[in-house]
Amino acid sequence: MRKARVRLRDVADKTGFSTNTVSLALRDSPRIPPATRELIRKVAADLDYFPNRIAQSLVSRQSMTIGLVLTDIRNPILTQVAQEIARALSESGYATLFATSDNTTDREIDAIRAFRGRQVDGILIYPTEHRDIEHVRSLRDQGYPVVSLVSDREKALDTVSVDEHLGARKISEHLVAIGRRRIALLDSAAPLGNTEKQEGYVEALTEAGLPPDPALCVAVPGHGIEDGYRATAALWARGGRPDAIFATTDSVALGVQRWCEDNDLAIPGDIAIAGFDDIEYARLSSVPISTVVYPVEQIARTAVERLIELIGVNGPLPPPAERLLDPKLIVRQSTAGTNAGAGH
Amino acid sequence: MRKARVRLRDVADKTGFSTNTVSLALRDSPRIPPATRELIRKVAADLDYFPNRIAQSLVSRQSMTIGLVLTDIRNPILTQVAQEIARALSESGYATLFATSDNTTDREIDAIRAFRGRQVDGILIYPTEHRDIEHVRSLRDQGYPVVSLVSDREKALDTVSVDEHLGARKISEHLVAIGRRRIALLDSAAPLGNTEKQEGYVEALTEAGLPPDPALCVAVPGHGIEDGYRATAALWARGGRPDAIFATTDSVALGVQRWCEDNDLAIPGDIAIAGFDDIEYARLSSVPISTVVYPVEQIARTAVERLIELIGVNGPLPPPAERLLDPKLIVRQSTAGTNAGAGH
Repeated sequence: MRKARVRLRDVADKTGFSTNTVSLALRDSPRIPPATRELIRKVAADLDYFPNRIAQSLVSRQSMTIGLVLTDIRNPILTQVAQEIARALSESGYATLFATSDNTTDREIDAIRAFRGRQVDGILIYPTEHRDIEHVRSLRDQGYPVVSLVSDREKALDTVSVDEHLGARKISEHLVAIGRRRIALLDSAAPLGNTEKQEGYVEALTEAGLPPDPALCVAVPGHGIEDGYRATAALWARGGRPDAIFATTDSVALGVQRWCEDNDLAIPGDIAIAGFDDIEYARLSSVPISTVVYPVEQIARTAVERLIELIGVNGPLPPPAERLLDPKLIVRQSTAGTNAGAGH
Repeated sequence: MRKARVRLRDVADKTGFSTNTVSLALRDSPRIPPATRELIRKVAADLDYFPNRIAQSLVSRQSMTIGLVLTDIRNPILTQVAQEIARALSESGYATLFATSDNTTDREIDAIRAFRGRQVDGILIYPTEHRDIEHVRSLRDQGYPVVSLVSDREKALDTVSVDEHLGARKISEHLVAIGRRRIALLDSAAPLGNTEKQEGYVEALTEAGLPPDPALCVAVPGHGIEDGYRATAALWARGGRPDAIFATTDSVALGVQRWCEDNDLAIPGDIAIAGFDDIEYARLSSVPISTVVYPVEQIARTAVERLIELIGVNGPLPPPAERLLDPKLIVRQSTAGTNAGAGH
């Protein structure tokens, strides 16, 4: 910023102490008497003195700044993740550099480059693609602290995530348990190569003796309500007649619900609806939607803790660790009717 | 980050050119032949060389980093604002440092201090309180580039915002025009001292000869769906019987809608509902909700342009400029029935 910067020298001149004493006092060193420390701090505040972290970082080689890359914070869950991470980092004295990749790997790579140019101490990332993440793994290989919010099948990254496979399996098993037999999948993850939820769904149905019907599996090109609405319309248009729909996000599930309401299908009588994430809009929808919880705060805190731990390591980093959180199922009105859908 | 940094020197050694030539080539100087530039760029990329922006910033006194402070990005509109601002800044070569204030002025002040310590070139802020913003005005007074996303009555700040007063007035006039006479206000802004929307509502009702009834004006302690639900319950519990409700955010309006549905009130027959913001969840709700558009992209782009303009000024900053965008009204099903509510 433009203003002539107040320097340590100015605080020293004003107080009559040496710059060394001022510097120690502002870092709260016990080598300076408490009364002196207080006096110097007061003068520094009056002069509007800010320690120049940029100059400090050239000496300490720490910028006390973290880069956070998310795909798209319009997904309310990633919004909350961003907010919780920024808060947790701030409590530990770190600032958060923020970028979204708009679900493209190219922009993700650009963001990482921009962050590295600004000497971030570490990177937290929710990668666009869960598999094609060599650009993230290579950071780790080079010894950079990085934590991914998506699990890595090659276990080459530190990760903190919810067990999407198990979560999808649990909610699919629930749909089976309430008597549904034609369970559709509206999948906004698979088009990005992220097949964990799909696999959980397939596993649950197969084990129940209900081999998944390709006619009931729809790729959804986005994570929003409108995407869910259009996908449901498309499913019906091509003759799919499910008695339950599992949507891979709550926003997509809300779109399913809207389409069913517009077409006079009873929920859950004619069709049970389940989502994933546990967002407020689905919890407080006209028919509250059953879902799997994405534990935002736990994920944010755990990821920040791990990243700070990696930053603090002297010497080579420890082997990557995977933290897979157990997903909690929440049953609400949208799947509350048992054995109701078999005759549709 | 920990790894031994690749330096300009390394690129020079590898290519056989001087550090000066390498530096010019990487800044794409026409003084270096194109073929040489390309060779040097390729070697730099192979070596994984990143220009040290931190060192550069000590020389240029520009960090190419902006601080963004928002109140709470769980409000989907502020989420979109954050994303659009980060995108627009990135297109201009700036990185975004991000913090939320959780709607407290103390955390806002902390965030500004943290950003100044990191030498941001300017600050974009959506302040918690619209009036009590001396800490923001004083930045401007000291010559720091700062743009607020909320208008400033004292005109001491550069601001880019939607005209909330006019927007609230327009939607209240609309409720009058469709024949509503007992129009309630569910106000989540006034408790924070932000009375623009309240004033627009009072003005519209007063001019229509419908002096606002204090029994129909409810302070809502938060901006979420649940806040709107509880506030509507409280309004009914104390005997308020409106035929229309204007909620100061769409999320609050969604809570109103849920309560009305749970209590078998027809929308808009028994009660018309209007919000503010134009979020997807309200647009695609079971009864789509009439609203005033918060023009996210226009606000983000305009604010970023102005901030970059201020950063580029040599010498004293120009006088603060206010940009107040005209709010657009969108009528949907929640207020579509005309003259239906008078007899409730």
